[in-house]
Amino acid sequence: MTKRVGVIGGGQLARMMIAPASELGLEIRVLAEQEGMSAQLAATATGDYRDLETVRAFAADVDVVTFDHEHVPQEVLRALVADGIAVHPGPDALRFAQDKLVMRQRLAELGAPQPDWAAVSDRAQLQAFLDDHGGRAVVKTPRGGYDGKGVRVVRAAEEADDWFDAFAGEPILVEELVDFTRELAQQVARRPSGEVVPYPVVETVQRDGVCAEVFAPAPRSSERVIEIAARIGVEIAEGLGVTGMLAVELFETTDERLLVNELAMRPHNSGHWTQDGAVTSQFEQHLRAVCDLPLGSAEPTAEATCMINILGGPEGVDIDERFAPAMEAYPTAKIHTYGKASRPGRKVGHVNVASDDIGDAAYTARAAAAFFA
Amino acid sequence: MTKRVGVIGGGQLARMMIAPASELGLEIRVLAEQEGMSAQLAATATGDYRDLETVRAFAADVDVVTFDHEHVPQEVLRALVADGIAVHPGPDALRFAQDKLVMRQRLAELGAPQPDWAAVSDRAQLQAFLDDHGGRAVVKTPRGGYDGKGVRVVRAAEEADDWFDAFAGEPILVEELVDFTRELAQQVARRPSGEVVPYPVVETVQRDGVCAEVFAPAPRSSERVIEIAARIGVEIAEGLGVTGMLAVELFETTDERLLVNELAMRPHNSGHWTQDGAVTSQFEQHLRAVCDLPLGSAEPTAEATCMINILGGPEGVDIDERFAPAMEAYPTAKIHTYGKASRPGRKVGHVNVASDDIGDAAYTARAAAAFFA
Repeated sequence: MTKRVGVIGGGQLARMMIAPASELGLEIRVLAEQEGMSAQLAATATGDYRDLETVRAFAADVDVVTFDHEHVPQEVLRALVADGIAVHPGPDALRFAQDKLVMRQRLAELGAPQPDWAAVSDRAQLQAFLDDHGGRAVVKTPRGGYDGKGVRVVRAAEEADDWFDAFAGEPILVEELVDFTRELAQQVARRPSGEVVPYPVVETVQRDGVCAEVFAPAPRSSERVIEIAARIGVEIAEGLGVTGMLAVELFETTDERLLVNELAMRPHNSGHWTQDGAVTSQFEQHLRAVCDLPLGSAEPTAEATCMINILGGPEGVDIDERFAPAMEAYPTAKIHTYGKASRPGRKVGHVNVASDDIGDAAYTARAAAAFFA
Repeated sequence: MTKRVGVIGGGQLARMMIAPASELGLEIRVLAEQEGMSAQLAATATGDYRDLETVRAFAADVDVVTFDHEHVPQEVLRALVADGIAVHPGPDALRFAQDKLVMRQRLAELGAPQPDWAAVSDRAQLQAFLDDHGGRAVVKTPRGGYDGKGVRVVRAAEEADDWFDAFAGEPILVEELVDFTRELAQQVARRPSGEVVPYPVVETVQRDGVCAEVFAPAPRSSERVIEIAARIGVEIAEGLGVTGMLAVELFETTDERLLVNELAMRPHNSGHWTQDGAVTSQFEQHLRAVCDLPLGSAEPTAEATCMINILGGPEGVDIDERFAPAMEAYPTAKIHTYGKASRPGRKVGHVNVASDDIGDAAYTARAAAAFFA
């Protein structure tokens, strides 16, 4: 059994791995970007994850390296692998999460359903795509985007000029603006030896490009949608060689197709509900998977679980003071905090509520989260 | 909101407080007896909890002091209180968990149902008790016992001679040997401001004086037994001024009376099921209570949850190697390990299984735990 798991990145995803690591008897070590981060409790090193020697020194004392985010450069990842270190997910898989153009190309090869897309290098190519897609589209920087950053809806080709300049002739991604009825997320765990376990597909609600609410399992879903979502997730996990947790963000279209929007190769905001609503939380499952331990059951433990993100309010508001009244009003609400300073719009925690009824779960979770707004 | 919780004692109960402390945004610090203990991850100090200066130095940097065990001496506890430190449970309450004679006297004053008992100082007094109770009884050292230690069934007065000698004229406790059908445990959380929340009563099965199995809620219980157990728990928590978690071990007699056996003022083995079977785990609830935060719901999240302790097997067996096959065979089993070296009979972990059916939960939990035997 692998004993020492090294997590690169000290954010809340690393923080939330600490509890299951303790239950599983794994030693967890975190390479944090700086002092005082969310995962401080397990931080054994501080430094720049882009610096090979920093990462190499950290990785030398662990049995497997995994991640809080997907931003570790390919050259650093490949050097670790060359050193003989187990890296999960590995660089070949992570490429597809790091570069959206590479991802689109590979998903096309796999035959996964996705929006129309193109690699465009200048205004004329983008205009041609716009002309073919009703005069509007989504442009994305291939690398560096998250939580709505690096994504822009455009109606005229010149609206992407700054990105063409920034990428200096390298292509950027353009996608059709999908007419979706809702967004779904399909999580799958896969371990190096090949075992794959899909979670039930969930419904996600985004606000300002940030995940705001999750309903698990996705309410009012046909058997067909549930099966297709799981199949897409499993095929991508296998096709891309993902190890650990994979999240596939999906659009459900008006004609009940599912189209792949984004991928994440780590625990994901759409899976926070599993902490209080599934037999095996995504954080435990990620650890099992990257350590090549048998995967746990992904079955829900309640009829319905609702997750609401807590976003930082105005500067200077002390989130800590909001806890007691929220806890008093809603004793069934599970409030998870990330130990981060509150800034407007920053994810600082979330609330999970499990219930027999999704309406009740949503009402209670929203009401508890409202104490922090 | 209280931010820094200091836990005296580095065992598995302290370890299992780390996860909920992180979720609640509390900073947890542990005074461990030595390096490498179960709660090592949060250990910020190492030393003897009987040494006032060691404890005082530890307590100086926290907002509330609580415990992994009940063994901190009264004089140390009272010095902390005199220093103005919040100690939960406080010394007045802890006395009743530290000295079984004091407990019996106080429970008698409260009118709580308990076995016949007496304080006996010599062989003659013990013989008189035996003569009145069918020639058999349980003798207990008032202090220092746990997990079956300091407890002995006697059929002749001379069988306690060594304890009379050891206690040098101080009385020891003798209790009637209760004819019970089963053992139950009632947990209650109480915070300093007075809020009290009882958990559902559970059935416990002891082997060799050590908790082996717990069934939650206690199967086949009459409404009357459930209500009486909760009332006994609440009355004792209030009557003794307990803050934090209280566990009341109960005998259910052949004539359906409930009699108080033992008390514990901390998270308790009979409550480990709450980690995977209740809205609020006993570890989270203990932290909420000692920080005087609103208590969470104690409702079960499943029809039935079974907890089986993992006890260390023969010397030299590597518990870690048993994990993977157990996890593979039983993906719904939640295996919790304490990070302790295995010694015969030592509690090194536990397995929880939640299910719609107690028989199924018990079967799966026992089968998973059997991998570690």
